[in-house]
Amino acid sequence: SIDAARLLGRLRELGDIGRDADGRLTRLAASDTERGGRDRFVSWLEAAGLDVAVDRIGNIFGIWATEGIADRPPLMLGSHIDTVINAGIYDGCYGVLAGLEVIETLKASGYMPGRPIVVAAFTNEEGVRYAPDMLGSLIYSGGLDLDAALATIGTDGSVLGDELHRIGYAGDREPGFLKPHAYLELHIEQGPVLEREGVALGAVENLQGISWQKVTIEGDANHAGTTPISMRRDAGYAAARVVTFLRERAKASNTPTVATVGCMAFEPNAINVIPSRATFTVDLRDPDEARLQQEEAALADFLDTLSSEEDVTISVERLARFEPVMFDAGIVAEIETAARARALSCRRMTSGAGHDAQMIARIAPAAMIFVPSKGGISHNPKEFTGDDELVVGANVLLDVTRKLTQG
Amino acid sequence: SIDAARLLGRLRELGDIGRDADGRLTRLAASDTERGGRDRFVSWLEAAGLDVAVDRIGNIFGIWATEGIADRPPLMLGSHIDTVINAGIYDGCYGVLAGLEVIETLKASGYMPGRPIVVAAFTNEEGVRYAPDMLGSLIYSGGLDLDAALATIGTDGSVLGDELHRIGYAGDREPGFLKPHAYLELHIEQGPVLEREGVALGAVENLQGISWQKVTIEGDANHAGTTPISMRRDAGYAAARVVTFLRERAKASNTPTVATVGCMAFEPNAINVIPSRATFTVDLRDPDEARLQQEEAALADFLDTLSSEEDVTISVERLARFEPVMFDAGIVAEIETAARARALSCRRMTSGAGHDAQMIARIAPAAMIFVPSKGGISHNPKEFTGDDELVVGANVLLDVTRKLTQG
Ligand SMILES: NC(=O)NCCC(=O)O
Ligand SMILES: NC(=O)NCCC(=O)O
Repeated sequence: SIDAARLLGRLRELGDIGRDADGRLTRLAASDTERGGRDRFVSWLEAAGLDVAVDRIGNIFGIWATEGIADRPPLMLGSHIDTVINAGIYDGCYGVLAGLEVIETLKASGYMPGRPIVVAAFTNEEGVRYAPDMLGSLIYSGGLDLDAALATIGTDGSVLGDELHRIGYAGDREPGFLKPHAYLELHIEQGPVLEREGVALGAVENLQGISWQKVTIEGDANHAGTTPISMRRDAGYAAARVVTFLRERAKASNTPTVATVGCMAFEPNAINVIPSRATFTVDLRDPDEARLQQEEAALADFLDTLSSEEDVTISVERLARFEPVMFDAGIVAEIETAARARALSCRRMTSGAGHDAQMIARIAPAAMIFVPSKGGISHNPKEFTGDDELVVGANVLLDVTRKLTQG
Repeated sequence: SIDAARLLGRLRELGDIGRDADGRLTRLAASDTERGGRDRFVSWLEAAGLDVAVDRIGNIFGIWATEGIADRPPLMLGSHIDTVINAGIYDGCYGVLAGLEVIETLKASGYMPGRPIVVAAFTNEEGVRYAPDMLGSLIYSGGLDLDAALATIGTDGSVLGDELHRIGYAGDREPGFLKPHAYLELHIEQGPVLEREGVALGAVENLQGISWQKVTIEGDANHAGTTPISMRRDAGYAAARVVTFLRERAKASNTPTVATVGCMAFEPNAINVIPSRATFTVDLRDPDEARLQQEEAALADFLDTLSSEEDVTISVERLARFEPVMFDAGIVAEIETAARARALSCRRMTSGAGHDAQMIARIAPAAMIFVPSKGGISHNPKEFTGDDELVVGANVLLDVTRKLTQG
């Protein structure tokens, strides 16, 4: 079994890197605070005697390759250490640190793996600073042009490639330089299912489709006091209609479709000026690709109608689009077997969140293990999973790792 | 008649102070760019041989007091030179510069007024940087505590008193140091009425009530992909419901009530995070006080229902509240007489915008003259009034000034 104190200690230590004066944790991809997290992670990789490699998109790898097996395709464990704004400490970091923990445990036990084991921390999984999300693992699996990705402009106007250089993580390895034999990711569920059902583990068999769009509505600035309601071309009001449309549609359906408007900005954003421009994001998700397309089409239709009803101009930019992913049935079964062997309850489930595993699934058999999230809360400082639950998950990761790397 | 070229030239010159690289004019109250506008205005006052005075809230006065009449209550002409964000050049500046133009014209003509004539530029009329709007004239008329006003925190976190010091316009005169005999303000209409009816001038007989509130909605941040719609406490969605409620209510009534949400901010403002907080402004106006109170009550009721329906916490802060104002019937009649004498069409009307005249009306008989606004557009760079229309308005201001200062 893994060293629980070491894993939990590191999770807390990493969780303090990027806290501001008010105690809020924000470690956005390729920022100064994330550099601090990366440096700490690399120091742990080195202390564990692993080979450290960084690729051109800033993905970090800790490689354990014993003599004679170095050329075999590795088992890769991983996740990410970037966070959202005002985040919890578990999302991503748990999977990365548990991967390292598994390798150290196996190493110390004298285990002789049949293939290298690699722990990876992928760049910009959250997608809060740069779109799309899972950018580092997407590049790694060949799903996006590297130069285009390095030129990505962030929500703060920064350029990803410049930021990677600045923080010292523009590596020299080509993304994809190690083609995994298999990929395994341990993560908190971030949703309410496991806790509600009292189940210890999720064997994640699929992951829903994700559609991210940025919508810009242009109306006309005018005086709040003198402009009759009938003469307004109010971009802010039109934006509000999109927000309520999405919610009412999602509520009325009895599908698992979710729709979220997370970002919103009005211009000129002055109390007595009718907004001339509103910019906002739409995050649409569905486990079913046909239904996700339907939802996108319904939004497009609504925007069409809205633009004539409110006499506004609407433009849409796609920020991310990923189809639903099926994970590898064999690995999912291994997770269930490992859970059973430890007498742990386990259910197959769908991931509501995006994960690096969904990208690496393009180039290798992949699956995920979930542990419960208290109250289903994530992307929130109240994100919480109990120590025992975290340790249980890491031990199952250990068992499945052993199984997938037998000599 | 006034010197049209001088008036129009100055209007354009002042309109270029505060333009950014993209040509956008923004001269927020007590900012560096507004200091530039103030300095230019003061240089014109000095060149015209007027006594310049600045009071403790930064209101600027140019005083023309000929021998023997200096102690009589003056006729005050005025408006403001601060602007909204991305503004036009006419709002406020036209009234200030026409006031100066009238004084210079009368002075040059050898006119001997029966009382001093003063041109005033009041601080922070727009209310975009500091609330309430018309703050300088409100202080001048004794409607707000000076120390409280100087401590006002702006939308950018600045403190009004500090900013006035910084830009050199924290004067030493006590606000109200000159009690006007009467107050007259020339302004662009900022609405569509005069143009639509083909009328040259408005004799403004009343001004609608203004209610400004800042609403903060608190929900819970959570993951956009994993949180079922039924479990969301979405502050952004709740805010959107307020925006649509206000519009639908205003649309359904057949009253002149207007409601505007001009400012909006989400937190944490991340694409895959359900907003934990939304902050926005509500600008409600009605010429009828009872109806304005009704609208405020309807909003309060809606917020109550919303807070339980969406399981969010809502708090409301009042930023400004002014009852409708009736202007002085005698001055309104003088404006009509002056228009008739120049064979100009003129109608009585209500002001939809707030103006310094409504504050000075607390301490002196006051009224306003409007000229048409093309397309009813204001608080927008497309704000426009033709040169001839501007000159006509300034000449009527000249005539009424003469009438109100006869020896
Ligand atoms: N796991 C996780 O929160 N990923 C971020 C990408 C997303 O699902 O929005
Ligand atoms: N005249 C004018 O635009 N005043 C600003 C205050 C307001 O009416 O919102």
